[in-house]
Order: sequence, then structure tokens, then C-alpha cells
Amino acid sequence: MTRLAPLDPPHRLLMGPGPISAHPRVLRAMSAPLVGQYDPFMTDAMGEVQALYREVWATHNEQTLLVDGTSRAGIEAAIASLVRPGERVLVPVFGRFGHLLAEIAERALAEVHRIEVPWGQVVPVSRIEEEIARVRPALLAVVHGDTSTTMAQPLDELGAICEKHGVLLYADATATLGGNVFEADGWGLDAATAGLQKCLGGPSGSSPITLSERAADVVRSRARVEAGIRETGDAESADFVRSNYFDLGMIMAYWGPRRLNHHTEATSMLYAARECAAVLLEEGRDTVIARHEVAGRAMRAGVEALGLTVFGDRAHKMTNVIAVEIPDGAPADVVREALLDDFAIEIGTSFGPLHGRVWRIGTMGYNARRDAVLTTLAALEQVLRRHIDVPVGGGVEAAADVFRGAGA
Amino acid sequence: MTRLAPLDPPHRLLMGPGPISAHPRVLRAMSAPLVGQYDPFMTDAMGEVQALYREVWATHNEQTLLVDGTSRAGIEAAIASLVRPGERVLVPVFGRFGHLLAEIAERALAEVHRIEVPWGQVVPVSRIEEEIARVRPALLAVVHGDTSTTMAQPLDELGAICEKHGVLLYADATATLGGNVFEADGWGLDAATAGLQKCLGGPSGSSPITLSERAADVVRSRARVEAGIRETGDAESADFVRSNYFDLGMIMAYWGPRRLNHHTEATSMLYAARECAAVLLEEGRDTVIARHEVAGRAMRAGVEALGLTVFGDRAHKMTNVIAVEIPDGAPADVVREALLDDFAIEIGTSFGPLHGRVWRIGTMGYNARRDAVLTTLAALEQVLRRHIDVPVGGGVEAAADVFRGAGA
Repeated sequence: MTRLAPLDPPHRLLMGPGPISAHPRVLRAMSAPLVGQYDPFMTDAMGEVQALYREVWATHNEQTLLVDGTSRAGIEAAIASLVRPGERVLVPVFGRFGHLLAEIAERALAEVHRIEVPWGQVVPVSRIEEEIARVRPALLAVVHGDTSTTMAQPLDELGAICEKHGVLLYADATATLGGNVFEADGWGLDAATAGLQKCLGGPSGSSPITLSERAADVVRSRARVEAGIRETGDAESADFVRSNYFDLGMIMAYWGPRRLNHHTEATSMLYAARECAAVLLEEGRDTVIARHEVAGRAMRAGVEALGLTVFGDRAHKMTNVIAVEIPDGAPADVVREALLDDFAIEIGTSFGPLHGRVWRIGTMGYNARRDAVLTTLAALEQVLRRHIDVPVGGGVEAAADVFRGAGA
Repeated sequence: MTRLAPLDPPHRLLMGPGPISAHPRVLRAMSAPLVGQYDPFMTDAMGEVQALYREVWATHNEQTLLVDGTSRAGIEAAIASLVRPGERVLVPVFGRFGHLLAEIAERALAEVHRIEVPWGQVVPVSRIEEEIARVRPALLAVVHGDTSTTMAQPLDELGAICEKHGVLLYADATATLGGNVFEADGWGLDAATAGLQKCLGGPSGSSPITLSERAADVVRSRARVEAGIRETGDAESADFVRSNYFDLGMIMAYWGPRRLNHHTEATSMLYAARECAAVLLEEGRDTVIARHEVAGRAMRAGVEALGLTVFGDRAHKMTNVIAVEIPDGAPADVVREALLDDFAIEIGTSFGPLHGRVWRIGTMGYNARRDAVLTTLAALEQVLRRHIDVPVGGGVEAAADVFRGAGA
């Protein structure tokens, strides 16, 4: 074969709902050489990743680690390991990813109960408690921020409610962790999972997860060590997790002092996850969340100053992504394509009931930056003007005002 | 938080059973910037990866793609998607990874039948056919090369046998693909999976998979598009795969022309997988396999010239890893640790019945190189001499002779 062209991705400013442009430090970390699976450097790096993510999650949970796969690998590991076939799972659904949690629980043969609200709203906490009392689920599985609608479900009261009713509480923080207030211990979560490709500023492919001791005990009660490495005395529950790859008991034993061989840790993705957390914690967790809040508010002010309408319940918005109603006269895909072709800027389309109705614009991770926001608004103004009337310079100035007001 | 020390792995020459040191081009590819999930560059890159891996697998299978996870993610995707609960799966077990296939099939609630032989042997094809006739499985799941014993199960006759009996044939090529003869179409395989961290010279975390049309039809017959993105007319089989993440029907629809949203492709790992295949195909598939054969033969000659004994049935050895019996007087872990501490060379320990009995030494991917083999033998000689008598220089010279004989 002749020599292939080198891999040479075009420049992109990724301002959609994720993935977003990774932090350059994270990209560089992935080019670091590999070490062996049980090299002291590797096991130390795994321990460091655990310590760093305890800070990112705001938790003391011993069982804080990575699942090797994209964010939905973490979701499936949590649900499949915590829920036995036939057990009830309650899922508030306020967007596409609530459907995903319900879907994953159904595939794990749980009895799934949904609470649905129209897209653009969140589920009132009182209604969740009513349904918990009625359904008596083993697990409440809830999306924190659903990028399909840009809504953030309040989680801070759910831990106490779940504890009162003896229910495990799992939150999918894929789209929020690192860019929105998130308190795993403070909110009483039993399990939470995320991905790197949103506010953490990394590539998709590694899923941080944290489990309370209560959740870890459920996982341990289903322990089954695989044949071939099983030793005398190892538990072998008949109630085993219906997946080897997602059996958190095996994954915990691999990350724990026993270092029981399971998968071969995805070393380069571990390096990426490490660097995502290092970048975030060096800047400061609260500082990064505040930066997301300001960038998101600036983007919203900018698109509104261009005469556009932001979709959804403003009281429950994620910081890091907005849905912008597509104005009459602006062809949805033509505008997105022109932004990509002429300015190398990507914004997002949308799913389900919002398909063709909104664009989704993200300001997250490395791209929750003043220049990224202003550049996107300047380009959007130019592209929109080809189709509709838009105020000259209004978007950029409104956004710049927000940054100035925040001292940014 | 104060600034963390940069991620700075020590130099290592990884000569164990994998992971091995990644090719520098693969490491560099992972530091390439991200693009959006549906960016034309991304969908083109996915198409290119499919085309490249068709050559690596020696197949025309349309359904040739990546599963986002380590090699056992690919194994579980194949087995969970091809086997319905209650169906019979037959697994020849000649090492640890046969147990793994059986384990994964059991977790998928298959009725699992094993054919076991002592570690160090392979399963006679006649015995496999007898058991197929007796058990009448839906799937024969077989490890190609099992690094736990270094044996390679002959696969070339199994396709015809399986076709005769109406059985699907799946092979786990994690440890062999790219460094041993492998003919997905020529051998009549219905499914095969691998990882990057062995002969392909990349990091763990992405699993190449290929499916015949017959296998793809089984997967399609169980199609279920998840709620939230399901459209009118989408199939919804009651016989769905008991996993969302590993439902190959959804993954095929994501890689196919419909580009149905499933996970967010792990872009950096896709770049790595692309570069692994590009490096291999530029050198030439047959040339790379021959390079593994020579390097493996040289390592074997070298350790034998040091007075050591190579374990297992010589007629059925993988090219790329040998198991070396630990000689009396040489403390197994002390020798391995000295190689790592004094020479930054990693060789492998072992599992199950071979634990403490053999070291495993790999010559694969980027490290199937003359200098890597000779350096390992020189270091091994030095370390062994601290404990036992070893011939002076014999290992290196014997290996160099093999390379000279091969014109390498």
C-alpha cells in the first residue's frame, strides 16, 4: 500500500452541546508513552485519578474511578450493577437522556416507571417524591442536565427524599460535571457518572463514576469473580450482574488494593481523564463553574441581542448550553453549515420534539472562553444576515457587557 | 490547588503479553484536535477506519467498525448481540480467555458448554466438531490466541464445520490480529473482535470488530432503536439485546448511512485505531506478520540459548508471545522487578495454573523489533546471572542469528 495521508483534522471551534474542543493539555497528555498495566507509575496514576475525581465530584467516596467507554458506558455500568432484573426503577424524563436512562434500565430487565414532563421543563421535586411513594423503586435514576432541552433538574433535595424512602439515587452528570454546581456528597447521591467531552474539556471515551458505600455494598452483594482468575474463597453470587464489562464489582476490585485483573485499563484515556481533572482543579473548581456561568450568560445575552429567543424554563437552565429558537426565514441547516464552512464553528442541531425548532449552542470546558463566545456571536450575526434582519454588532456587545460585568 | 506535576511516564520497553509500547505515530495521532461528531471530517474518518480494518481483517464485511471500549467490550458486544438468552454457546477453553468468553456468554444468560484441554495445548478440530454435533449451539465462540498459554487455536477449518451445522462462528483475535495469519473471510468467520494494545501497536480502549452478513442479519432481527430518537417505522423487537451500549444494531446504525445517534464516538481512540491500521498497512500486512514471526522465533531461540525452556505445544504457538519456564533458583518476581528497575523492561507474570511457573515475553506491534529483542535478552542474561548460571552472550547471539537468517 502507498503511504496514507497523515491524520490532519481541520481547525474547528466546537460550540455545540458536546463534544467540544479538548483542552490542548489534555490532547498532549494522550501522546504520553504507555506503561504496563501494573507498573508502579500506572497504579499510582490510577490512585491519583481517584483522588482528583473525588475533588471534582465533591465526594469522599472511596469508589471513585473510571469506566472505560463513553459516558453511556458509565450510565450502563451504574444501572446494570445497582439494579437486579425485575426491580423497579423510577426515571424522571424531561428530555432525550431521561429516555436513555429508562432504556438502559429496561435493557437490564428492570421494571421501569417514568415521570414525563414537556421538553423545556424539569420535574417538580414534589412530584418525584409522590411517585417514589407510589412506585417504591429500588433506584431513582435522574439526568442532571439534559443537553437535548438544556434543562438542569434540581438534585439537592433528592438525596434526603431517597434516604427517607430507602431508595438508591443515581444521577447522570455527563453534561454538567465541572461546569455546574454539583455536590455528590452534599446532595446525598449514591452513584453518579459523567464523560470527559463536555465541561471537563476532554475527548469522549472515559466515564468518571463515583459510588457511595451504600451503592458499593449493593454491588459487592452481587460479586462474582470470573472463571480463569477466580480463587478459592471468592464470592460467586447467583445474583450476578448481567454483564462482565459493566460489573462494577470487578472494576472496583481492579482499581482497589487487590488489583484483580479485569479489562486492560485504557491508558491513554486515563491520561486524558487525569489531565482534565488537573486542568480543572488547578484553575479551581468553583472558579471553573463560575466561568461556565458567565460564558453561558454572555452567550444567552448575545443571541437575545441578535433578536433570537432562548428556549426553555429560564429558572432551570444548565450553565453550559442554550437552545436557540430558529427564527422564521433562517433555514436551520443552511445556517449551521455556513457557520462550519465559512467560520469553522460548529453549533448543534437537536432531537425529537425540538428537531428543526432550535439550535443548541454550548459554552463549555475549554470553550467557555470570552473569545470563543464573541467569535461565535460575530459569525452567527454574519450568517443570519444572509437570511434575516439582525442588529449590527448587538450580539457581540451584549456578550462583552456580561463579561465586563463579571470582571472577565 | 497548587499546580500538579505534569504527567510524565517513565521510559519503558514493554515486552510482556500486552499492552506493549505504542507506535510513536499512534501516540501523536491521539493529540490531534477533536472535530464534531457529525463533522464531514469525522464521518469520513469513520469510513476510512472501516476500509482500513477490512484490509487488516482480510474481509469484505460491510459491518467492520469499532466498539468504544477495551478488547473485552468488543467480545461482550459480539456475544451479547449474537446470542439470545437461553441459546447454547460452545466455547473451547485452552486458557484464561476461553474462560472469559464462557463467562461473558453466561452473563448474557446463554446456556454455555465448554470443551476444556490442559493449558499449553489447543483443542483438536475433530473434538470441536463432535461437540458441535452433540450440543447443537447457536454460536461457537473461540479464542484465536490465548496469551495466558501462548497457544493459537487453528481456526481455518472451523468456518466450514460451522456452516455445515448451521452455527455462527465468533473468534476473539485480541492477541493475534496483525501479528499472526488471520483471514476473516477465508476462514468463514461470522464475527471477530480485537483490541489495539497487542500486535496493532496502540493503546487499550478501542475494539475493532467485523461481522459477516449472516451475523449482521441476526443482529438486525433483534433491532430496537432507543426511545428519544426512535422514529415511526423503526423496528422494536421484543427480543432486544440486553444492553444498550453493546447493541451492535444501534452501533451499526451509527456507523452506517443513517448515522443514528448512539454513543459519542471516542474521537481520540478512533484516531489511534486509524493510525494503528495505517502504520500496519503501509508496512504491508504480510510483512508485518512475517516480522512478528521472525521476532518471536528470535526471542524463543534467545531464551533457549540462555538455557531456559519454552512452555507449551510448539506446533500451535502464537508468533508474538512466549511463556518461559522459570528456572530453579531464579525468584520469579525478583527477576521481573530487576528487569523493570534496572533496565526499564517489562515482561509478564501469569495466571491460573501457570502462575509462578512461567514468565511471558511478548514481541509484538511496535516492539516486534530486532533491537527490542536483543536488548531484552541482554538484560535478562544480566539479571538471571545474579541467581543462576547462564551462558555468556548466548541468548543475544542466537537471536541475532535468527534475524540474520531472515535477512532482518
